Amino acid sequence: MSDRFLLACRSEEVDCTPVWFMRQAGRCLPEYRAIRKHHSLLEIVRQPELCTEVTLQPVDRFGVDAAIVFSDITLPFLGLGVQFEIQSGVGPVVESPLREPVDVERLSVFDPHSDVAELFAAIDLIRRASAVPVIGFAGAPFTLAAYLIEGRPSRRFHLVKGFMHQHPGAWRRLMEQLTDATIAYLAAQVEAGAQALQVFDSWIGALSPSDYRASIQPHMERLFGSLPPVPTIHFGTDTAGLLPSLAEAGGDVIGLDWRIDLDRGWEIVGDRGIQGNLDPVVAAGPWEVAERQTRAILAAAGGRRGHVFNLGHGVLPHTPVDNLKRLVELVHEETA
Amino acid sequence: MSDRFLLACRSEEVDCTPVWFMRQAGRCLPEYRAIRKHHSLLEIVRQPELCTEVTLQPVDRFGVDAAIVFSDITLPFLGLGVQFEIQSGVGPVVESPLREPVDVERLSVFDPHSDVAELFAAIDLIRRASAVPVIGFAGAPFTLAAYLIEGRPSRRFHLVKGFMHQHPGAWRRLMEQLTDATIAYLAAQVEAGAQALQVFDSWIGALSPSDYRASIQPHMERLFGSLPPVPTIHFGTDTAGLLPSLAEAGGDVIGLDWRIDLDRGWEIVGDRGIQGNLDPVVAAGPWEVAERQTRAILAAAGGRRGHVFNLGHGVLPHTPVDNLKRLVELVHEETA
Repeated sequence: MSDRFLLACRSEEVDCTPVWFMRQAGRCLPEYRAIRKHHSLLEIVRQPELCTEVTLQPVDRFGVDAAIVFSDITLPFLGLGVQFEIQSGVGPVVESPLREPVDVERLSVFDPHSDVAELFAAIDLIRRASAVPVIGFAGAPFTLAAYLIEGRPSRRFHLVKGFMHQHPGAWRRLMEQLTDATIAYLAAQVEAGAQALQVFDSWIGALSPSDYRASIQPHMERLFGSLPPVPTIHFGTDTAGLLPSLAEAGGDVIGLDWRIDLDRGWEIVGDRGIQGNLDPVVAAGPWEVAERQTRAILAAAGGRRGHVFNLGHGVLPHTPVDNLKRLVELVHEETA
Repeated sequence: MSDRFLLACRSEEVDCTPVWFMRQAGRCLPEYRAIRKHHSLLEIVRQPELCTEVTLQPVDRFGVDAAIVFSDITLPFLGLGVQFEIQSGVGPVVESPLREPVDVERLSVFDPHSDVAELFAAIDLIRRASAVPVIGFAGAPFTLAAYLIEGRPSRRFHLVKGFMHQHPGAWRRLMEQLTDATIAYLAAQVEAGAQALQVFDSWIGALSPSDYRASIQPHMERLFGSLPPVPTIHFGTDTAGLLPSLAEAGGDVIGLDWRIDLDRGWEIVGDRGIQGNLDPVVAAGPWEVAERQTRAILAAAGGRRGHVFNLGHGVLPHTPVDNLKRLVELVHEETA
């Protein structure tokens, strides 16, 4: 078993730069799409054998250096008592979005062990079957709140930001509850076998740095301060202006999207690991462009310890399987 | 007539910090909505008296220090031979989006004087009637291309970015043609009476810095190098990671969105003016929050010459008129 991924997360020496891809399980893989013909996303998550199969498919196909548990960041909504469905081509759609302070009171307390028990059975199976380290993950409180308040994927996040400013007390209670839920959820994943954790604050880049510092950062600091001692990756998109605060909040590795040069981003976050940051559109495009830009990213990393190669966000469904396979080979060869 | 706006654009001494708001004309103003009941956006643009009335409404209402010509960045599409409509609640929708290299060949050459003649009549009228400087504007080539290729406002800009990578030759021809069109369009606005120009590269933040440098920056440098000698503002959103390159491309003033602290942004772009950068959601929210964050922005500007106060993007339709009026007063008072 190669543990170059875990070594890189701790900024230790590696034989070559590790690679994995956000959304590597699913989407662009024909063997995944064959399973999805007969099973919904939530059905896969609830059947440990199936979840294990889907989680390990990209390890076999692409030769990536980590397996990320196949799941969805909205999974804790089941335990919070929030009805939702994952609509094809749209994403998670919440039946009754939170719009008033009183709506926060109707959330239940999420108990991972009883609410999503099958997932931990899956993680246990994955850990036994996997030749590479297993990453558990969760959505960060702001990103979860964005889904709960907007009700569906949003372009501008006006509703969640409006709620934050209009109802600061209810917002704080919501953040506290989602932070508690996320800590419990991630701790349970480690207990079940996850060897590293990624926190997806995917939509945090909608906020100004001042709003982040005032209304988000204290909760993120508590979150990172309460996790079990495994390597943690703190990821968001549109974060170029937030990086100083986001890095301060926590994470052994900071995940960058493609909107900042890797070396500039690394300089800002300082002495820790960095993950990224090829544009997923480039990964899906002509191989020559993907190759050229990957070489440029490796040059920006400059052989420094602590680089985990990844895309700047999730794999796009139309990405050629072959591009991802070649990306893994390219990064391994160039950094060996 | 106060010319503190023009002075600030040139980083000269002012009596107090000038203020204007992107999308100040229209949207949140009841007197504008009354006109829109009987006239479409394009009808207003085509009737110089009506266009002048709508352009000057916010100057009277809010006391802003500049008037921006009421128009839309898609207006040149009329001359490029692209059929489109501005759909309520959606934005510009193009009938036949460009998807293949051959589609670029079907664009006509935009001739501002014949294609949008009424707009220049409007600018002439506005200039005579306005007590404050008049800003002309245009969309930047990438942002125009995003509309032409995506066909409608997009969340992720996969199609335009895919086109750029798959068809570099056609992309270059498209950028050259849109750059030519934009230069001619902005020059004609100055000829008609515009005293400053803002270039809206609203969606440029979808790109990585390396794609910006390779595929956009040369065109933007030519654009800014070819404009008449009036103050220019270079604006985009999601640009925190692009700022070094964007500033290098040109503009006397760099317009920031709210995703970066004003002082950090100013430090990056260096010795020139800065515009921004209150989050429009905050401007639309509780007054106390808008006031607190505005004071923080003024503190970050620190009384340095060259600050033009604005929102980080356009005024939202639900913004209370009173908030905008009070913001103008607050900025003027605090910086006098």
